[in-house]
Amino acid sequence: MIDELYKPPLALLTDLYQLTMAYGYWKLGRADQQAVFHLFFRKPPFQGGYAVAAGLEQALQYLQQFRFDSSDLEYLASLTGNDDAPLFDQQFLDYLGQLRLSVDIDAVPEGTVVFGQEPLLKVRGPILQCQLLETPLLNLINFQTLIATKSARITTAAGDDPVLEFGLRRAQGIDGALSASRAAYIGGSAATSNVLAGKLLGIPVKGTHAHSWVMSFDTEAEAFAQYAAAMPNNCVFLVDTYDTLDGVRQACEVGKQLRRQGHEMVGIRLDSGDLAYLSIEARQILDEAGFPQAAIVASNDIDENIIASLKSQGSQITIWGIGTKLVTAFDQPALGGVYKLAATQQADGTWQPKIKLSEQAIKTSIPGSLQVRRYHSDGQMLGDMIFDELHGVDPRAMIVDSKDPTRRKRLTHFTATDLLENVMQAGQRVQPEEALTAIRQRARQQLASLHPTIRRFMNPHEYPVGLDIGLHERRDHMIQEARQSQWQGKERTS
Amino acid sequence: MIDELYKPPLALLTDLYQLTMAYGYWKLGRADQQAVFHLFFRKPPFQGGYAVAAGLEQALQYLQQFRFDSSDLEYLASLTGNDDAPLFDQQFLDYLGQLRLSVDIDAVPEGTVVFGQEPLLKVRGPILQCQLLETPLLNLINFQTLIATKSARITTAAGDDPVLEFGLRRAQGIDGALSASRAAYIGGSAATSNVLAGKLLGIPVKGTHAHSWVMSFDTEAEAFAQYAAAMPNNCVFLVDTYDTLDGVRQACEVGKQLRRQGHEMVGIRLDSGDLAYLSIEARQILDEAGFPQAAIVASNDIDENIIASLKSQGSQITIWGIGTKLVTAFDQPALGGVYKLAATQQADGTWQPKIKLSEQAIKTSIPGSLQVRRYHSDGQMLGDMIFDELHGVDPRAMIVDSKDPTRRKRLTHFTATDLLENVMQAGQRVQPEEALTAIRQRARQQLASLHPTIRRFMNPHEYPVGLDIGLHERRDHMIQEARQSQWQGKERTS
Repeated sequence: MIDELYKPPLALLTDLYQLTMAYGYWKLGRADQQAVFHLFFRKPPFQGGYAVAAGLEQALQYLQQFRFDSSDLEYLASLTGNDDAPLFDQQFLDYLGQLRLSVDIDAVPEGTVVFGQEPLLKVRGPILQCQLLETPLLNLINFQTLIATKSARITTAAGDDPVLEFGLRRAQGIDGALSASRAAYIGGSAATSNVLAGKLLGIPVKGTHAHSWVMSFDTEAEAFAQYAAAMPNNCVFLVDTYDTLDGVRQACEVGKQLRRQGHEMVGIRLDSGDLAYLSIEARQILDEAGFPQAAIVASNDIDENIIASLKSQGSQITIWGIGTKLVTAFDQPALGGVYKLAATQQADGTWQPKIKLSEQAIKTSIPGSLQVRRYHSDGQMLGDMIFDELHGVDPRAMIVDSKDPTRRKRLTHFTATDLLENVMQAGQRVQPEEALTAIRQRARQQLASLHPTIRRFMNPHEYPVGLDIGLHERRDHMIQEARQSQWQGKERTS
Repeated sequence: MIDELYKPPLALLTDLYQLTMAYGYWKLGRADQQAVFHLFFRKPPFQGGYAVAAGLEQALQYLQQFRFDSSDLEYLASLTGNDDAPLFDQQFLDYLGQLRLSVDIDAVPEGTVVFGQEPLLKVRGPILQCQLLETPLLNLINFQTLIATKSARITTAAGDDPVLEFGLRRAQGIDGALSASRAAYIGGSAATSNVLAGKLLGIPVKGTHAHSWVMSFDTEAEAFAQYAAAMPNNCVFLVDTYDTLDGVRQACEVGKQLRRQGHEMVGIRLDSGDLAYLSIEARQILDEAGFPQAAIVASNDIDENIIASLKSQGSQITIWGIGTKLVTAFDQPALGGVYKLAATQQADGTWQPKIKLSEQAIKTSIPGSLQVRRYHSDGQMLGDMIFDELHGVDPRAMIVDSKDPTRRKRLTHFTATDLLENVMQAGQRVQPEEALTAIRQRARQQLASLHPTIRRFMNPHEYPVGLDIGLHERRDHMIQEARQSQWQGKERTS
């Protein structure tokens, strides 16, 4: 999608500070120092219990096209500092012009169910390159993961009813819409209204007519009849332009006409009013008119909570059209994904773990070169261990909750899978593009292997994720040491 | 930005139902029937009192590139209905392949302060074309108007302090970020971290270093010193990697070193902790060390309410770095802009106004071919009249509140300006691209001419917007007539 959609090389799609830091590393002769960065979020979005990873394919496409062209370098040459002198040396710009990525990347496959603190992506390579990639990787992975998760929640609420994504008009920009269509499909939606997403990504597309079609005729009856005449094999009549139930009756009349011509009306759509009441009444009208198979599509600011509420009221909606609330993740429109340095290689070849402290325990980072081991049994996911590949898993085979280290859990005698897979080696992609349907299927299977209480929308049961006990102890030691040296620093300066 | 950024023609960037309706109009021989559509929102976002129009330039660029290429037509030919037969005739696809836009468009200039129910855009032309454009125009105008408005609120809160937009990593997709950077600048932000936005749009870019820079050195002191050595003319030290106030002291040491070398430290940045407390303490440390001019930049989930709160606490922040809350419009990530049919031309050349009813008065549309007349006096905006150009302004010169028709207001003896300007004629753009700085300046001037109580964040004073009394009476008559015929319809069918 990146290659097909965008014209220019997108290397400048990054924060300026990545370039000023890159310049710093280059000037210090540290551009090629090896480093490890992890991309992760701290808490699942929407106060939920999980997230669905997405956006890796676009991230890989981004990396494959990564280069600075001459117009990029000209632009950078024009930037100045607070003394009006150029920000960057020409030699550095020449270096950028020659730069080709040589990073290794491990990533969890798209559609994988993931949890807070778990790396979705590990980038290992020259620190200058790792740093330049921070912003675009976050942009691409944060958003699609957010939307795939929202879609998983909405489609979970909808159960067996198809969910149609209708969000293009309210989405945040052109690829705000396209990426959302893709991620929504991964999370479980069945189709999109966005024709370009259909063409570029192969997602099924759906759509029939709007209020304006009805308003452009003298009567609703004529509008339905003329639509049916033009496109008899795609009839979902929007019935609420004037009086909704009257509209349902008009649709039935046209449906009968269609049937006489050998076509079957697909259904009706409700876009306003009390959807519980109207769908129940509409079902009765449709059934009595001989259309028990006709679908009742509903749209109008629907989300997972409204679906659950409508279902509990016995609504007769069979297809859900979801726009704004899905494609913008309305109740939490950003995933707080971060990208943190976790290790650097020293001159002697050894790796030094790196940690960022914070007053908030959850914001203190996890040092090392991490991998996530998922334990399961009888098709159920039981818990995840975050461990440091530089040390391997501690023989005690125990995980420690990083937020509350008194909570520990043994995970033995279960099957285990490591989630992060190598997808890029020395700047070269080593995995082909996965079919979107396969990614969608992975998400569906993984969601099914989660205990239903973890999928719950409100106050979900917490899925066990912990640090390998060896990693926990080493990290704890680093925290104490860092605090100690801060304390000494304060004594010195005060 | 559309031409520079995107490769393919984007005519398929629309909802499928626009194409199925287009097919219907074409089949009925009504493709070229003239129609008028208005793009507007019903209520300003964020429970605020106004919005700032933005996105027109991208909309015009979109229209200029509008065409279906052969791969678009091939894709459309592959779509099927519920009988597995093709959705579209080949003749229709040939028609689309030949289609060139011939619409006229009037629009309010970007940066204009606008209110609920006022058309931001009026599209007049063949109904088939108007319909195809609904979705992309909404996508492009909704989002930028949303963000320009959010930015206006944030920069209003910041007063004379510069606001830097830092949102790329959390934005909704690549142009979710780029469009947001543009709209944020229109709304008043001073610079962006997004280098590509700097290159493509000419917005000033800012940035220095991240926590990872500090973590990659053994000590914070070394990290600051090495950054200063590499880029002495761009030093804003991020001081909260370990202990924040200790970080400020380290920054002062390096600042003194810089000064000895003839450079001046720009300032420090706080990215966590209690920003009121830390900025006050940091200011004191900086002042005592001889840096009274050093800026204190703050970031970390800031929005207009947090700025107002921090200012009321006497915080010493002088530059605001705003990311997520600005570029996603976090508290309301979509503007509910709509695009409604308002008139069609009859075979005899007369125009027939069109109305969509709703149970909710605010959702009942305004018929006609609308224009907005703004009244002002002594540099203050006093009120807006929405009138129908097909009828002109009623000599009674009175506006009627469409939500509460008992509220009426006379607007005479004031200067008046009509907001909608012709920007496209017969599919050809007739206005050149406006400089972004000029648009930004318009927004600033217009915001200054609004009474401060209308700019208030909470429960703002309502700016007077009403219908021309003649338009109000004609609309009221149409509503009564439509209700009457519905009622008769019900009697017939029951």
